[in-house]
Amino acid sequence: MNSPRIILLAHGSSDKRWCETFEQLAEPTLQSVENARVAYMELAEPSMDTVIKEGVAEGASHFTIVPLFLAAGRHLRKDVPAMIEELEKTYDTSIQLAPPIGENPLLGQAIRDVVMLQLEQTPA
Amino acid sequence: MNSPRIILLAHGSSDKRWCETFEQLAEPTLQSVENARVAYMELAEPSMDTVIKEGVAEGASHFTIVPLFLAAGRHLRKDVPAMIEELEKTYDTSIQLAPPIGENPLLGQAIRDVVMLQLEQTPA
Repeated sequence: MNSPRIILLAHGSSDKRWCETFEQLAEPTLQSVENARVAYMELAEPSMDTVIKEGVAEGASHFTIVPLFLAAGRHLRKDVPAMIEELEKTYDTSIQLAPPIGENPLLGQAIRDVVMLQLEQTPA
Repeated sequence: MNSPRIILLAHGSSDKRWCETFEQLAEPTLQSVENARVAYMELAEPSMDTVIKEGVAEGASHFTIVPLFLAAGRHLRKDVPAMIEELEKTYDTSIQLAPPIGENPLLGQAIRDVVMLQLEQTPA
């Protein structure tokens, strides 16, 4: 069994600038992790359906969805698990939902580093 | 002029677990930056109004709001600037709005590290 394909899941928006921020956020992961992709829950493409369909066509049999969300709300507790269940049936594949990135302590450390930089840049 | 007081701004939610995730995300910053506070835009306390009011009462004269948002949508482009304008008038203080944390490259690197850990934990 190969490593699962990583899908970075963002909410999605009709605002192109919003999606561009997520594409930039994903860039270091896409460069480091083979076959990793970004997908959007709604309002933007590629959707989860598009990315899973393409992955399966390329021979992938399991996926891990890493939500680019700081915390789990209704979307991650209800909507996304329901979408995953449908996608698993449709494409006869296995999809694991990881915790949102904000639940990992590394994010809190990165936020502290961002704030420290912000303070250095503020004219005293 | 002293350093600005740092306010970590989260959206807020009536779901207590959602707010707890943000309190954990803020913890490293609160431990490293004197007088830093968390505030919520809506649906949870403390609000920005509460935190600014308390800061001013303690003698603070300027604040920097660091949004715990991955990208800027309507809230950060419109709602929060309007709230800040009101708060500056009400409390005769100066409030700077920093970019959302997701626009800092450190976040993209942290996301890559989270995904790497996720892959290590996935049974092969």
